Amino acid sequence: MSTANTLQLNEFQQHCQQRVDRRLGAALDAEIASATLLEAMRYACLGGGKRIRPVLTYGSALAVGGDLPAADNAAAAIELIHSYSLVHDDLPAMDDDDLRRGKPTLHKAFDEATAILVGDALQPLAFQILSTDPITENDALAANNRLAMVQLLSQAAGATGMVGGQSLDFEAVGVKLNIQQLEQMHSLKTGALIRCAVLLGGMSCESASDSQMSALAIYADNIGLAFQVQDDILDVIGDTSQLGKPQGSDSDKNKPTYVSLLGLDEAKALANSLSDKAIAALKEFPASADRLRELAAFVVSRLH
Amino acid sequence: MSTANTLQLNEFQQHCQQRVDRRLGAALDAEIASATLLEAMRYACLGGGKRIRPVLTYGSALAVGGDLPAADNAAAAIELIHSYSLVHDDLPAMDDDDLRRGKPTLHKAFDEATAILVGDALQPLAFQILSTDPITENDALAANNRLAMVQLLSQAAGATGMVGGQSLDFEAVGVKLNIQQLEQMHSLKTGALIRCAVLLGGMSCESASDSQMSALAIYADNIGLAFQVQDDILDVIGDTSQLGKPQGSDSDKNKPTYVSLLGLDEAKALANSLSDKAIAALKEFPASADRLRELAAFVVSRLH
Repeated sequence: MSTANTLQLNEFQQHCQQRVDRRLGAALDAEIASATLLEAMRYACLGGGKRIRPVLTYGSALAVGGDLPAADNAAAAIELIHSYSLVHDDLPAMDDDDLRRGKPTLHKAFDEATAILVGDALQPLAFQILSTDPITENDALAANNRLAMVQLLSQAAGATGMVGGQSLDFEAVGVKLNIQQLEQMHSLKTGALIRCAVLLGGMSCESASDSQMSALAIYADNIGLAFQVQDDILDVIGDTSQLGKPQGSDSDKNKPTYVSLLGLDEAKALANSLSDKAIAALKEFPASADRLRELAAFVVSRLH
Repeated sequence: MSTANTLQLNEFQQHCQQRVDRRLGAALDAEIASATLLEAMRYACLGGGKRIRPVLTYGSALAVGGDLPAADNAAAAIELIHSYSLVHDDLPAMDDDDLRRGKPTLHKAFDEATAILVGDALQPLAFQILSTDPITENDALAANNRLAMVQLLSQAAGATGMVGGQSLDFEAVGVKLNIQQLEQMHSLKTGALIRCAVLLGGMSCESASDSQMSALAIYADNIGLAFQVQDDILDVIGDTSQLGKPQGSDSDKNKPTYVSLLGLDEAKALANSLSDKAIAALKEFPASADRLRELAAFVVSRLH
């Protein structure tokens, strides 16, 4: 068992951020012939960020009795997919944002063509990391397991997951969604990758049981939705310096949000209820799942 | 051994096109919530095209004694990567092309945001197909092999392959490249995926030997370069109706080409020499490699 278990959540998050940054830095120091592309890929991935998905991956690995090094590749792969999606999401033809994580968005710092290519290059790097480096030993079980991880990530990233949700989100601008439609959109747009982050963490420990994986899936679905509801709340009550993007930027675009549909108080109650359900899903887990429990509380209390 | 061996090249190509279209059609009929995204993905993938990469994959499978059904997933995965790259390459911030395969480019038929998302969704679908469906039986050897295929495709598609080459190509606009720099750019931009198409075909037959795979790699590198040289030749001597894009569209953009560096006659001689080297690499292969031999000749004789 890792010593990470004895850390406070804040220290655990910092430790996870350092781990995943180290793994990403190594992956982005490979033999890439285009100097511009490499610099821009590093700009996209190594510029900070909450790393909430990798932290979930590591927390999930601990919860099922695994250790942090075995989850490094999964954590990095998830963050690569998330990072690429931000770069493309910020493009003029998409959300047209100038500011991300307190810095100019990639197409502002470089140009649009580079931003398109950076996203296109970060995505296969995620699959390369999952498929290339042995997680434990390169035995038959590990290969099966890693293939299953590739499969899960590909489903979560593509048209049946994140990109499908982004497309639904795009179709929803100016359209009056009901709460079920909003939930479907978010369950794909942000939920699929968060779910994948949690499940890959569990899968990085080959002794994880089916019932543990099922409980992690319930945890993940609830925390994923809670994360989105809290995002909508912060879009209304947060301030630009803490968010790293202009406050109200989503509601300005006439996008439906939980706050616009439910009102602020009910949205807060929903976020807390989802967080509670996530924690309840872990009731059979030992103390090694405390990081996941604390993360469920953190997601709905965060200010940015 | 497949009956495909007794077909003429033209019939073999048509047979391969039908196989890969059927596999792509099945993959693009999955549960995708966004109707616009699904329609646009199908527009990008099922609108014809030479399918030269899948044909190489199938030809390579036959060359090492494999069969066509075992290569279906590899062929489809390669074509998905190629199709996504065309959609993004045509974007206004990239090559800004209006016409592709004789039809409006995707961002013209739909819009830019959809074109970005389609590319982003086609790419993980390639990895999903390679990782999800068993090629032969879902035994340990197959899992290792399929994981190696995922690894190869991820390297070929990303910053160390196709996207890296596209970035070099972008940097080269208005710059005077020498022949070595041009070759490096093309070996990544188009060569990496063609090499991968050939190698995945070989890998789809688990009895392929190391020496066979090495010979296939030499074949692939030569045919990949020959393909690019012929593209540059066709950009000068072809006509728009056969190319499906405006003749001279590359030279108009002040991009270096083999014809601009070598002149037309020397470029033609280079293409033929590369084709001969590709065929020579297969000298130890039996008649089952005849499709690859014929393809090497076809690549430098094609008119579009």
